Amino acid sequence: MRTRVLRFPCAGPDDLTPLRDALADGRLHPERVVAVLGKTEGNGCVNDFTRAFATSVLKRFFAEQLALPEDTVAERIAFVMSGGTEGGLSPHWLVFEVDDAVSPAPEQPGLAAGIAFTETFAPEQIGRLDQVRATAAAVRRAMAEAGIERAGDVHYVQIKCPLLTAARCEQARRRGATVATTDTYESMGYSRGASALGVALALGEVDERALNDAAICHDFALWSGRASTSAGIELMRNEILVLGNAPGWDPALRIGHDVMADALDGEALDRARATLGDGQLVALLAKAEPSRSGEIRGRRHTMWDDSDINATRHARALVGGVLGGRTGDLALFVSGGAEHQGPDGGGPLAVIVESGS
Amino acid sequence: MRTRVLRFPCAGPDDLTPLRDALADGRLHPERVVAVLGKTEGNGCVNDFTRAFATSVLKRFFAEQLALPEDTVAERIAFVMSGGTEGGLSPHWLVFEVDDAVSPAPEQPGLAAGIAFTETFAPEQIGRLDQVRATAAAVRRAMAEAGIERAGDVHYVQIKCPLLTAARCEQARRRGATVATTDTYESMGYSRGASALGVALALGEVDERALNDAAICHDFALWSGRASTSAGIELMRNEILVLGNAPGWDPALRIGHDVMADALDGEALDRARATLGDGQLVALLAKAEPSRSGEIRGRRHTMWDDSDINATRHARALVGGVLGGRTGDLALFVSGGAEHQGPDGGGPLAVIVESGS
Amino acid sequence: MRTRVLRFPCAGPDDLTPLRDALADGRLHPERVVAVLGKTEGNGCVNDFTRAFATSVLKRFFAEQLALPEDTVAERIAFVMSGGTEGGLSPHWLVFEVDDAVSPAPEQPGLAAGIAFTETFAPEQIGRLDQVRATAAAVRRAMAEAGIERAGDVHYVQIKCPLLTAARCEQARRRGATVATTDTYESMGYSRGASALGVALALGEVDERALNDAAICHDFALWSGRASTSAGIELMRNEILVLGNAPGWDPALRIGHDVMADALDGEALDRARATLGDGQLVALLAKAEPSRSGEIRGRRHTMWDDSDINATRHARALVGGVLGGRTGDLALFVSGGAEHQGPDGGGPLAVIVESGS
Amino acid sequence: MRTRVLRFPCAGPDDLTPLRDALADGRLHPERVVAVLGKTEGNGCVNDFTRAFATSVLKRFFAEQLALPEDTVAERIAFVMSGGTEGGLSPHWLVFEVDDAVSPAPEQPGLAAGIAFTETFAPEQIGRLDQVRATAAAVRRAMAEAGIERAGDVHYVQIKCPLLTAARCEQARRRGATVATTDTYESMGYSRGASALGVALALGEVDERALNDAAICHDFALWSGRASTSAGIELMRNEILVLGNAPGWDPALRIGHDVMADALDGEALDRARATLGDGQLVALLAKAEPSRSGEIRGRRHTMWDDSDINATRHARALVGGVLGGRTGDLALFVSGGAEHQGPDGGGPLAVIVESGS
Repeated sequence: MRTRVLRFPCAGPDDLTPLRDALADGRLHPERVVAVLGKTEGNGCVNDFTRAFATSVLKRFFAEQLALPEDTVAERIAFVMSGGTEGGLSPHWLVFEVDDAVSPAPEQPGLAAGIAFTETFAPEQIGRLDQVRATAAAVRRAMAEAGIERAGDVHYVQIKCPLLTAARCEQARRRGATVATTDTYESMGYSRGASALGVALALGEVDERALNDAAICHDFALWSGRASTSAGIELMRNEILVLGNAPGWDPALRIGHDVMADALDGEALDRARATLGDGQLVALLAKAEPSRSGEIRGRRHTMWDDSDINATRHARALVGGVLGGRTGDLALFVSGGAEHQGPDGGGPLAVIVESGS
Repeated sequence: MRTRVLRFPCAGPDDLTPLRDALADGRLHPERVVAVLGKTEGNGCVNDFTRAFATSVLKRFFAEQLALPEDTVAERIAFVMSGGTEGGLSPHWLVFEVDDAVSPAPEQPGLAAGIAFTETFAPEQIGRLDQVRATAAAVRRAMAEAGIERAGDVHYVQIKCPLLTAARCEQARRRGATVATTDTYESMGYSRGASALGVALALGEVDERALNDAAICHDFALWSGRASTSAGIELMRNEILVLGNAPGWDPALRIGHDVMADALDGEALDRARATLGDGQLVALLAKAEPSRSGEIRGRRHTMWDDSDINATRHARALVGGVLGGRTGDLALFVSGGAEHQGPDGGGPLAVIVESGS
Repeated sequence: MRTRVLRFPCAGPDDLTPLRDALADGRLHPERVVAVLGKTEGNGCVNDFTRAFATSVLKRFFAEQLALPEDTVAERIAFVMSGGTEGGLSPHWLVFEVDDAVSPAPEQPGLAAGIAFTETFAPEQIGRLDQVRATAAAVRRAMAEAGIERAGDVHYVQIKCPLLTAARCEQARRRGATVATTDTYESMGYSRGASALGVALALGEVDERALNDAAICHDFALWSGRASTSAGIELMRNEILVLGNAPGWDPALRIGHDVMADALDGEALDRARATLGDGQLVALLAKAEPSRSGEIRGRRHTMWDDSDINATRHARALVGGVLGGRTGDLALFVSGGAEHQGPDGGGPLAVIVESGS
Repeated sequence: MRTRVLRFPCAGPDDLTPLRDALADGRLHPERVVAVLGKTEGNGCVNDFTRAFATSVLKRFFAEQLALPEDTVAERIAFVMSGGTEGGLSPHWLVFEVDDAVSPAPEQPGLAAGIAFTETFAPEQIGRLDQVRATAAAVRRAMAEAGIERAGDVHYVQIKCPLLTAARCEQARRRGATVATTDTYESMGYSRGASALGVALALGEVDERALNDAAICHDFALWSGRASTSAGIELMRNEILVLGNAPGWDPALRIGHDVMADALDGEALDRARATLGDGQLVALLAKAEPSRSGEIRGRRHTMWDDSDINATRHARALVGGVLGGRTGDLALFVSGGAEHQGPDGGGPLAVIVESGS
């Protein structure tokens, strides 16, 4: 088996030109694609329609290429759009292809990918233990699909999860159900947090007995060092991409991870790369969030008190700068909202490297 | 002579607690203060009243301490507030003190500081050659005050300059005068640009014959590598602080500079420090701006097309991340709007270092 | 001939449920549709992708219903999305149908509709006389299509026009061409202004000899009382819908217009309705803009100096409140940016009324 | 006794020119001033420093005029700044003077004013029953001061109340106390809500037994029809201005109130005026908030789902438009955040009228 990762810049959420070009020159193989991760240029918050727009356009593109209904495409390919390219971050898509056209039995483990989806959630399940458990089960399915047996071989789990809108809250209310929060912006955090705890549960990073509804977005001592979750208005289930290194996969690409201790901890990149040997950076994926303490290394930050720009937007800009300054590249998948993903103000970071050949 | 630099965090634009504490324990000497540079937590754009609020509170504080009228204080001390602490930047004040309590004739040059002010401008002079020339003359006066004879010994010139508001434009219009622009946000750029060209003229970085009204904010091949200009609603003249190294000044502190080639060029800090030898970082001052090309190292950025967050806000967040990631510190004086200050997308960077003793 | 106007609320830019429902119960006839006007919930500025998203979804919907390629649909139906539902404005779509299933020779004139498109513009034509003239020609074609002979019978001309992005400016620059402005937000105003002057030219509201590149967005004594223009990133030509009253059209619906003298002039609605007799309000279309003087009836407004919220966003909220307070309805087509559309701070207003039967 | 109300436009939060002019020509009497209400041009949210800036400048002005320490001034005069002039609202100050230079025993009741302050709150009291009770007690003190005996004669109670910042939450946490919310923007709602319930309690609009911590910002069936509360970063206590009609006060000015049923209910102004007879409008004070249902008269609004502009900003713009369109005036005291102030989406409205003489 072999995982390939293609990184495409885009000129807007509906810009298919780079994909069409790659198709024309044989670099892109639609039938192999299992996931598309995207940074789109919306606000990354509730009313960010760039995520849904990109998903709509991409889904249609692959449906046409594969001559399949869009619903069927949605069962084959995970589309995970993360809004927000603040600071200097550059909109782009990461396309993951899996194929079996590889020489038998490579000795080294290589980049393995698997996807899975939960059932559709009711609004009142979002940000609750129901979402945690359904996510954990889906992570295990995705690991099985990728042939990853040990939790320790998983280096990154990307999840796209839903959020609550005023209409969804109202729908629950009419059925007599109460939602985790009626603040729609806040609901993004609850959904991301519950999804991350699902990863932590599946990977053995937290004890199931420590989990309950009240812990979600409150007991931040519980976290995953490998989850990256992103909320969007365009779906009502969780879509999961598991990445790890596993035997039987082409070792040309490999993935490593570490945890940023805080927003300035760019050294996490060096630590993650140190496990992988030399090679060219193919993708960098990281979480960004404002520290709840209101400080970074003893200096006050103003992200929480800024009512003009949401705190997650500031945090993406900051981490984009830290990692962009270190890599010289701004087409980085820096995603905001790291509830239960790494320690306060920090977050998981994963890097995919292609070994020189 | 001796220049001292004190860096105070603040909890808001009117937070005097750190200054009062420093006064109480003898670290702050109001009678020696020649300039206060501040990062305040507004939007850094037209309606950023945190700059004026901080200036108002600080001016009053020094007036009380010095038992002088505020107008007199305003002739002794340059108050240069730069709004905008996007990303993780931390609000703080840099207080510059000058005194003569130093041993005679140090052999090495040390950090020298001088201030000067232009006359009050009419709205129609802002962003025009009038502002350029008046600024150049004031820079020369500030150099003379600091005892800096050679332009090459100047490493940083901080200027606070005015902007146009709708009311100021209207006032000019009623007198039959036309202003450089009626777009108030745009006027900040014109004022910063003209002020920077004034520095470039004074320091011999541009040829006077290349300067005219039309070149301002259009011919960006003209720039200063040492100017840092910041516009605010709270004044109608330019206030100038010149920093350099000069003989006769205490060499415990020294300043160096370099030019960031683009927003990711954190190596400029290393280059600037390389000229200074070992020592502890006392202050870092840098300009940030979005590249006009719309790209950074070949990657598209979205700063210009974002109508929710002004481009200068994105740029400060980005450069704050790049330099914060490099220094581990976010109390940096990163100021936005680098028209005619460094090349497109880059900008001057200065660092003040205290030699170990 | 008969024009019908259907107003559909929507739950998001891609919400087709109300259209599908109307199709199912026979209210909507895709083959008769000539134009869809929409208020979408983006920022109405440069990076408002809700307009393109809605257009993409709607175009596809009609292509499927009509079993035609999307390009062909785009030649039959004008899609005019206006972003921005600030204050309490409510996202909705106005669908215009034209059919000939009406009794011969009604004695009274009735609502007549015609559409036309310009050629695709080069970036450097936007906001220039080229755009004015191409628009005027297209307005005349749309009038002919609607069978409106006299300019005085035209009551409203809705235009969707392009804007400049950083990429489009760069494209012109590479060809050695200069654009009207490189400020992308400002380019929306130039495009709207030139388009409105095209309407004014076609309707005889301005003298062609008064028009030149320099007058666009500068000589605001030139304006149309019937143009409503809206800029978007999703097209590079002008799309035009002309509405008027003409003989031979079903008089069940009729349109009237007036000009709001300023943002508070809700009485313009009464004046426009007074020309139409009794009937139920079917649609209200109005322009909103901040007065350039900085005042409304002697009171200072802060729209221009607010760097957190664009001035057009404030203006839509204000006019939405004025007209919503008068009609008790917030599903109004209030569109921002009224350059050369009505006097400073005011703008054209049109109302479509259905006579009781 | 006599209450006078002076309305001053201002060119910025620190613009004292109109006050100085009024002082010079004898219209303003500093020794009589009991309250200054202001609309300032910040975002009205957490980081709106225009409120504190205006308060700082005004307090100093009155201290100088009265030759009193600022602390003493703060015990005599309530400074209630409400941030946010969205849409077309115009920044201005309403100065309330009280003097006894009036003819004995007017037969009709006239505008009566009284002020009172609570003690300083600890962060954990904000948004809790402690704040409710302290507010109710202060409202009763202010009524007594104004000589208003019956709750029914109170027509408007303006309160300035504190908010939580990240630092204040942290301070409580260090003492082992928990705050009502750690979301600083949300804390403004809790503080406004608790303060409004304090008014409702004092005026007999709610039953004390219905009140508890959990009801605050949750049981919105509890509300006052006369409270207007506004949160700001610049204070840690509640400052209260009670206005009513009472015997023994000059009847030249009188106040009436009604409740807007929703944001479009401009008729509330007519109803309030109907109780007062003819006369000139001197001041209009109203609350604005987005309906929690997400709809206004059956139309969806987008205020809650907009992550670029806070919902309270939209609501002020809307209500400003509704009332500005009705009065032709935009110097209105429209204040956002109407938790427990009127029904969902509506709010109290008060009008002060000067009878013709």
